[in-house]
Amino acid sequence: MTKKEKEPEHTSAGIVKTEYFTFCEPPHPLKLSSGRKLGPITLAYETCGTLNENKSNAVLILHALSGDAHAAGYHSEKDKSPGWWDTYIGPGKAFDTDKYFIICSNVIGGCSGSTGPASINPATGKPYALDFPMVTISDMVNAQKRLIDHLGIKKLLSVAGGSMGGMQALQWTISYPDMVESCIGIATSASLSAQGIALNEVGRQAIFNDPKWNSGNYYESSLPKAGLSLARMIGHITYLSEKHMHEKFGRKFQDSANAGKDMNPEFMVESYLRHQGVKFVERFDANSYIYITRAIDHFDLRADYGGSLTAAFENVSANYLIISFTTDWLYPTGNSKEIVRALRVNGKNVNYTDIETDNGHDAFLLPNELLEKNIKNFLKSELKKSEI
Amino acid sequence: MTKKEKEPEHTSAGIVKTEYFTFCEPPHPLKLSSGRKLGPITLAYETCGTLNENKSNAVLILHALSGDAHAAGYHSEKDKSPGWWDTYIGPGKAFDTDKYFIICSNVIGGCSGSTGPASINPATGKPYALDFPMVTISDMVNAQKRLIDHLGIKKLLSVAGGSMGGMQALQWTISYPDMVESCIGIATSASLSAQGIALNEVGRQAIFNDPKWNSGNYYESSLPKAGLSLARMIGHITYLSEKHMHEKFGRKFQDSANAGKDMNPEFMVESYLRHQGVKFVERFDANSYIYITRAIDHFDLRADYGGSLTAAFENVSANYLIISFTTDWLYPTGNSKEIVRALRVNGKNVNYTDIETDNGHDAFLLPNELLEKNIKNFLKSELKKSEI
Repeated sequence: MTKKEKEPEHTSAGIVKTEYFTFCEPPHPLKLSSGRKLGPITLAYETCGTLNENKSNAVLILHALSGDAHAAGYHSEKDKSPGWWDTYIGPGKAFDTDKYFIICSNVIGGCSGSTGPASINPATGKPYALDFPMVTISDMVNAQKRLIDHLGIKKLLSVAGGSMGGMQALQWTISYPDMVESCIGIATSASLSAQGIALNEVGRQAIFNDPKWNSGNYYESSLPKAGLSLARMIGHITYLSEKHMHEKFGRKFQDSANAGKDMNPEFMVESYLRHQGVKFVERFDANSYIYITRAIDHFDLRADYGGSLTAAFENVSANYLIISFTTDWLYPTGNSKEIVRALRVNGKNVNYTDIETDNGHDAFLLPNELLEKNIKNFLKSELKKSEI
Repeated sequence: MTKKEKEPEHTSAGIVKTEYFTFCEPPHPLKLSSGRKLGPITLAYETCGTLNENKSNAVLILHALSGDAHAAGYHSEKDKSPGWWDTYIGPGKAFDTDKYFIICSNVIGGCSGSTGPASINPATGKPYALDFPMVTISDMVNAQKRLIDHLGIKKLLSVAGGSMGGMQALQWTISYPDMVESCIGIATSASLSAQGIALNEVGRQAIFNDPKWNSGNYYESSLPKAGLSLARMIGHITYLSEKHMHEKFGRKFQDSANAGKDMNPEFMVESYLRHQGVKFVERFDANSYIYITRAIDHFDLRADYGGSLTAAFENVSANYLIISFTTDWLYPTGNSKEIVRALRVNGKNVNYTDIETDNGHDAFLLPNELLEKNIKNFLKSELKKSEI
């Protein structure tokens, strides 16, 4: 194909299908960080691109809080919206499916096909609800490792993700240093800030406060939609920068003739947030929201290394691409810089860029030329190294 | 008294008593910005210090969202906690009660003695609830103006407040330019940001979601404590800077032995916020929270002046002290700077300081030497001018 014929901005990974991998033995059910055992575990996953002969071109994509296995392409010809990272995954895109074999699995604790609190507890025949064990980012990674083994891949060319996806990517390089050539961590952190924990906590409280939540036992009655919707609204505020919100909504009224007359939304920003909340409850489980935000809150790479991030990265062997965004106040630039510092102290290979954008934390999901080029060039160079 | 005898850091405004001023006529019930009439209106207020003979030393203190008339001193000998701005009001303090006559009234729409949604609607004999009319910052100021008239004060030496108190102070100088010698606006803005509106909206949604809220009709049953508590938790996050939260709580566990085991708070910051929420519901009315946050959201000094802040300040005659705090992300420095710019374009007299602090928006309530000196010196110079 000549250059002229190819229009990478309009290409897609095409039709993808969700697959399911269930494991229990061997060697045993997954032992969680909490000490509890969980099994059988199903992971929903999708792949696109082709695994090469020596299985050296596999890239594992890790999703954030509200993501799923459907990272790119469409589920059917009629499907109107592509996967959550379709902007960056596809032929000729940053994660070029002409070159790489892309894998993305829904995390354990999730609600999009993988085992989570809404799954049936084999011991009772009913949904786990709050009997589901607490899961950590490490547990998510350990489950994914079983999937990678199952796919017969000995070494991943890269592990990549933004936000909580970046936390998993970093954890991969520490938990399985021999299985990861490189790591792409975007808008992420070695641990969440006190402010971030506080905001997750008010989101959880919004769910707890919903009487329909019923201590997590709502699967056979009506769902705690109001609470989950409110949690999502709070989350959504943290994903946008003040500048972005100002430019998008400013102080514009939704319906200026009726502003101030009743309890309906008055400002466009209120309407927008309520809409985001309502959309979210159609696809997400409230208990998963609680479990996954707790996993994020508990994540702390320093915890097992006497409080030292430098010690945490001592034995890693991956090359790193770390990217932050100037207006991200949930996972601010400083969080990325401390990762970079700890890697450099250990003499590890790390590329770091702080990308200037008004889009806040959400920037990792939105089209951004610099982000695309950074990922593309980093992966190309990793692929070249792996072929030597 | 010699200097040695006096220890200003330990002095207090002493025992203060809440007084009530009720007005209906003359000349008529208060006409609100919405066009609706409201009356009779009661304002709860407190004073300390002594009004001088020519009534030229009166300073009106304006409170923020959750404040009340009790700005300084104690209500009784046994009272353990002083008024909300006792740090800055008292003998020898910034608002020196040896020099100034301090007045503070609870806003209309409030729930601490002034007429608000919890007050009895004379037309029905029941609490107004959502029949209470929407009130604006202008309405609050217009009601206070009646109180100042009632006290026989023709001109206030100063109007002063932080956050929503600052909004009222600015509004005073525009609504009643001949009645105000000077204005102290701290951590405030000519209008709230889209992000601020969004955060207020999720607070309101938390209240709406509480089934006990019952469309505002809860005064004869049980109060929507869970919703109001959650609204306060959200608010509280915005009052603190990330740095302050990090230093105060970091990632410390509340009870590390049981962390991750149930739905109780795990991190100290979670516990702290829940405590703040629980404390707040004992003293605040959920409907007032809705009405007052809406007044804040609607406040926009530009609105009546074709979108121009410069035009809004064209006819003011007060001298201004404007203060912002470097880590305040709810009312950021930029908000103060645009006020200062608009005043300077009009050739008005304005002092501006951006105080470096880790305390975020809350800084206006906490001890701060620079804030104290700025207020003290500004007021002294205003008093001197008024005596010439």
